Amino acid sequence: MRIRVVNPNTTESMTALIAASARAVAGPGTVVEAVTSAMGPASIESHYDEALAVPGILAALAGADGYVLACFGDPGLDAAREVATGPVVGIAEAAMHAATMVGRGFSVVTTLSRTRGRALDLAARYVSPGACRGVHACDIPVLELDRDPAARKEVVALARHALEHDDSDVIVLGCAGMAGFAAQASDELGVPVIDGVAAATVLVQSLLTLGLRTSARGELAPPPAKSYSGLLRQFGRP
Amino acid sequence: MRIRVVNPNTTESMTALIAASARAVAGPGTVVEAVTSAMGPASIESHYDEALAVPGILAALAGADGYVLACFGDPGLDAAREVATGPVVGIAEAAMHAATMVGRGFSVVTTLSRTRGRALDLAARYVSPGACRGVHACDIPVLELDRDPAARKEVVALARHALEHDDSDVIVLGCAGMAGFAAQASDELGVPVIDGVAAATVLVQSLLTLGLRTSARGELAPPPAKSYSGLLRQFGRP
Amino acid sequence: MRIRVVNPNTTESMTALIAASARAVAGPGTVVEAVTSAMGPASIESHYDEALAVPGILAALAGADGYVLACFGDPGLDAAREVATGPVVGIAEAAMHAATMVGRGFSVVTTLSRTRGRALDLAARYVSPGACRGVHACDIPVLELDRDPAARKEVVALARHALEHDDSDVIVLGCAGMAGFAAQASDELGVPVIDGVAAATVLVQSLLTLGLRTSARGELAPPPAKSYSGLLRQFGRP
Amino acid sequence: MRIRVVNPNTTESMTALIAASARAVAGPGTVVEAVTSAMGPASIESHYDEALAVPGILAALAGADGYVLACFGDPGLDAAREVATGPVVGIAEAAMHAATMVGRGFSVVTTLSRTRGRALDLAARYVSPGACRGVHACDIPVLELDRDPAARKEVVALARHALEHDDSDVIVLGCAGMAGFAAQASDELGVPVIDGVAAATVLVQSLLTLGLRTSARGELAPPPAKSYSGLLRQFGRP
Amino acid sequence: MRIRVVNPNTTESMTALIAASARAVAGPGTVVEAVTSAMGPASIESHYDEALAVPGILAALAGADGYVLACFGDPGLDAAREVATGPVVGIAEAAMHAATMVGRGFSVVTTLSRTRGRALDLAARYVSPGACRGVHACDIPVLELDRDPAARKEVVALARHALEHDDSDVIVLGCAGMAGFAAQASDELGVPVIDGVAAATVLVQSLLTLGLRTSARGELAPPPAKSYSGLLRQFGRP
Amino acid sequence: MRIRVVNPNTTESMTALIAASARAVAGPGTVVEAVTSAMGPASIESHYDEALAVPGILAALAGADGYVLACFGDPGLDAAREVATGPVVGIAEAAMHAATMVGRGFSVVTTLSRTRGRALDLAARYVSPGACRGVHACDIPVLELDRDPAARKEVVALARHALEHDDSDVIVLGCAGMAGFAAQASDELGVPVIDGVAAATVLVQSLLTLGLRTSARGELAPPPAKSYSGLLRQFGRP
Repeated sequence: MRIRVVNPNTTESMTALIAASARAVAGPGTVVEAVTSAMGPASIESHYDEALAVPGILAALAGADGYVLACFGDPGLDAAREVATGPVVGIAEAAMHAATMVGRGFSVVTTLSRTRGRALDLAARYVSPGACRGVHACDIPVLELDRDPAARKEVVALARHALEHDDSDVIVLGCAGMAGFAAQASDELGVPVIDGVAAATVLVQSLLTLGLRTSARGELAPPPAKSYSGLLRQFGRP
Repeated sequence: MRIRVVNPNTTESMTALIAASARAVAGPGTVVEAVTSAMGPASIESHYDEALAVPGILAALAGADGYVLACFGDPGLDAAREVATGPVVGIAEAAMHAATMVGRGFSVVTTLSRTRGRALDLAARYVSPGACRGVHACDIPVLELDRDPAARKEVVALARHALEHDDSDVIVLGCAGMAGFAAQASDELGVPVIDGVAAATVLVQSLLTLGLRTSARGELAPPPAKSYSGLLRQFGRP
Repeated sequence: MRIRVVNPNTTESMTALIAASARAVAGPGTVVEAVTSAMGPASIESHYDEALAVPGILAALAGADGYVLACFGDPGLDAAREVATGPVVGIAEAAMHAATMVGRGFSVVTTLSRTRGRALDLAARYVSPGACRGVHACDIPVLELDRDPAARKEVVALARHALEHDDSDVIVLGCAGMAGFAAQASDELGVPVIDGVAAATVLVQSLLTLGLRTSARGELAPPPAKSYSGLLRQFGRP
Repeated sequence: MRIRVVNPNTTESMTALIAASARAVAGPGTVVEAVTSAMGPASIESHYDEALAVPGILAALAGADGYVLACFGDPGLDAAREVATGPVVGIAEAAMHAATMVGRGFSVVTTLSRTRGRALDLAARYVSPGACRGVHACDIPVLELDRDPAARKEVVALARHALEHDDSDVIVLGCAGMAGFAAQASDELGVPVIDGVAAATVLVQSLLTLGLRTSARGELAPPPAKSYSGLLRQFGRP
Repeated sequence: MRIRVVNPNTTESMTALIAASARAVAGPGTVVEAVTSAMGPASIESHYDEALAVPGILAALAGADGYVLACFGDPGLDAAREVATGPVVGIAEAAMHAATMVGRGFSVVTTLSRTRGRALDLAARYVSPGACRGVHACDIPVLELDRDPAARKEVVALARHALEHDDSDVIVLGCAGMAGFAAQASDELGVPVIDGVAAATVLVQSLLTLGLRTSARGELAPPPAKSYSGLLRQFGRP
Repeated sequence: MRIRVVNPNTTESMTALIAASARAVAGPGTVVEAVTSAMGPASIESHYDEALAVPGILAALAGADGYVLACFGDPGLDAAREVATGPVVGIAEAAMHAATMVGRGFSVVTTLSRTRGRALDLAARYVSPGACRGVHACDIPVLELDRDPAARKEVVALARHALEHDDSDVIVLGCAGMAGFAAQASDELGVPVIDGVAAATVLVQSLLTLGLRTSARGELAPPPAKSYSGLLRQFGRP
């Protein structure tokens, strides 16, 4: 099977990191194809960036059996499910579901403080009240995460604080740019640490193995035909 | 004061209808300017359409004191608040808040069945559990609403059914294209019927009168500078 | 249009303050009439006071097009809606709705600690879970607020603490006696600060402009005829 | 011990019925004293009636070890707890707590349709979401309940419908005027049927046996001294 | 009437303590019979212990009119209700219900930190959101509680901390082994302190007085006949 | 890797069915070992059966890398996580998580009506409010499912009814005994149909691939040493 991992940040170096994380967990018969969005923000650090990352995501959803949205805001997830030719899983969604199966309450560690609200909104959508016990920000910009050698240490320190403060037992890494941090962080912290990119990859693979794809009954059926105009003309559906 | 009402459906005739509804309730010192989005779907009838309506909305948020988003899905509301120069109110938000002040529980009547889930998501965001007692669809496409002379009657019949079925006491019209239906529907049904366009217009005017604008503290502060690429290059923020 | 603002605290000086706050935001065609309740507690600082403020409120609901209940506990709101001849808005309700339209989460600053529970109950009724992030008390009695020159400073200091502690971005003033504090507090704090008296005034005005009044269908219809006895004989409905 | 059961409906015949229900379950050392409120509505069938029943309740809370509020709206319960000299239990509260201990989900059968909203509000306050599965009205006025020989049959028929419709396993009688119906209704329906007057009586007795009374720490401590004016002057607290 | 109090911890000394607590509040006509479970853990300090305490509980539910489960995890409560010949009340359930009738928000003080999650789960089941404001652990093992003379002091100190930290007004003792602490702790803390064993005893007695037993309609009806095998063969139902 | 699937029903024929379902989806490097519980009920159709299935489950959790609990009530899941040497996933949990990734709202179809409450409790624990839109029972006993040739048809008919009635877009099969029904039911219904046994198998495999196991921090750490007595003596932990 072929899984396409879409990096909605239009920054190639991040895509390489994400690809490595996805490939490390894919099964023997799974081809992982990581693509960088063709339009939109270099990195996603606001509701504005997130909203404008969606067209690039939607344009990238073809040619594979299943899809991973590799931004922790899971931007455009419902829209993606309407148009994709196979199942679509967001990395926040995947990480949060996985977290509930290995602990009683998780903390999210993320990049900028201003993105915490989105993480809480997603937790309210995906998991039951009480499962997400806190969202903490290190205030390191997304694109600094792999450039700054101290970043990983700061994230681990923040996670340690989160476990104490939130009385949690699992850490969710709240940014695709932290994809490489999970294993070592888990060793240092002594708790499960979940990288959403890896988690979403195995979950899409699982859905495909189960023969499941997005329901075409009701709300997520393919959208009606529609003419589009202006800059977004190409998104029209005949 | 100047209020800009943004029609995210790229259909001019709908903008005229919306403008009329907004102007009918604006105060003497208020200038209402209704604009049609410069890019995106002719009408919004799916998550896909809604997501792709957001760039056009964000491009239209300038030159006024406050803004109304005239689509019942309130697309891109958080993003709009980050970048707009004044308060922004969505028509679902406005209608639902108003509904809770004139009744104990409201029903939404909307166009296509597939949009009901979005209305329920918004109700969960805006009002307390139990305030929204049901969302009902007439399955008339958005652009048929003012072309089809029978549409208004069908909407009223659906509203009557909703009041009985949901044990509700207020009707919220769940589409900007129903803007002209409120007064007569209220006469026929004997309950308050709320047009979100009018409601959002008076609420933006109210916020401006109170001297309130979106908080620049935290999550809704102007987004960080960012380079954008591809088709959406122009949305970059220096 | 004529809006009657009812001060349920039987203290005239407070009524003057409330009247000024309401008049400052009323539109050109709106007459604001502020009245002091004819019976009940000098100020409202307990469930007991609040319950006993309701008869005075109910007796004052006539002679206008719309009504504001100027006590942050919104005492007797449902009962008021049943009997008033036009829409009724409470100041907690108005402030909380407005707060959700200019930020992502608000803190309430109020007078006595013992009234915090009521504010939380009201937040649960009016807004979605998570919108109200905390209620903080300065423990200055209601009637000291405008007599004590230091009170405003203490309220601002408390609000500053609340923004930090609650990770909030908007302040709601939790007492009608703080009506005059909003503008300066907002300047000092750099966030929206909402005075419920002003907010409720523009919201009643908005409902009237929209042609909306309390639904007469179901629970809030005029109450059935009833004989009353004893001290409250005059409240009977023929 | 001495338990005072307060009938907030100013109708003596109802008090007799309530007294009988309470006395039938009181322990050997318990004296039940049933009193009719000295002021207010003949029966409580609206938010208006309920609000205006509170002064009479508050005036009656003295001279006993514990108190029962015998109206299913539990009017003024928080205020009553602030001023009463011993524990106070409402009949809705008592019935709903008891219902959760003998089944998995209960239905309430009540008098007028317009009071259903209040019952749902109370369920949200007392029990966890899902415990109350429905509230059904027979639309027989409160004071007809014991005058109309067919009333009991209609209530039983409504309860039977509620069990089916709500998939519930316990019936809560939603009016003090139904106090005498429980035993026979239970026989006919084959499920537990709970009379709140009896339930509240044994619960107050239980709290007294446990040595528990309303906490004087925080919100329910005796209210601050306050001068009252006008018709309610006598309610002032020195 | 005869009430059987089942101690699911297979430690006789704890049963004696529990019996004393139950007998101290039972009415004149009530016989309290306290039994120690015949199989399972010496004390219950994990989900594992709790699950394995259930067979012993189920085996002990016969020969009385009503039953108390004397472990704060209320293990097997639904199963117990299916098979018991009379009403069954758990001590967490009883304590939490009682707490809501004498205050606005309670804190639980319990033994081991690892049991806090279970207490929160139970609060979510029994009472409305917000009623339980915190669960605090002293990390004294269950069987040390009455052996260690300092234990009571530590529990009281923890309760004092909880009242401040949680802004609560009632304390619930979160372990059957604390049954003897309530009265003195209440004196020292100045708030209601609730011992679940005593609370459950008077509540079972109350249900019996009301003539209520577990509903045989639906989910809690006696379980279907079933053959059992292996070690648990004796639990089969013919 | 080795995954052990535990059938808590002590009926061998069901284990064979479960094994087939698990093996059909396991990856090439995964060994699935299906075991029948050594003690307890022949099938699980009540809270009583479920509680008494737990000892057999706990006794079976050794010798593998990860574990599936193959009963839709997910009996003893927290206890299992405390003691198992690798991750543990229940089939209700797995099916419900998967359902939320391929649709907007699912219905559960199950065996006996009396088990619906448990399914709703689990939905409240695993997924956000609104995700589970209904639980429907065919009232065919568990052990009849594969003996009765008409059973599959009845389940499909019930699922069709559920999709309409609940306005859902995904079906969750609510019993391990329905493991073989998913593929054909999905073909007939035109929506995703989820078999929890298969779903749990791929999810355990996914967790193992991600290197995740139950957190040993806090509530799910291995339980403290404890002596056990009576019939359950062997469950003691040294």
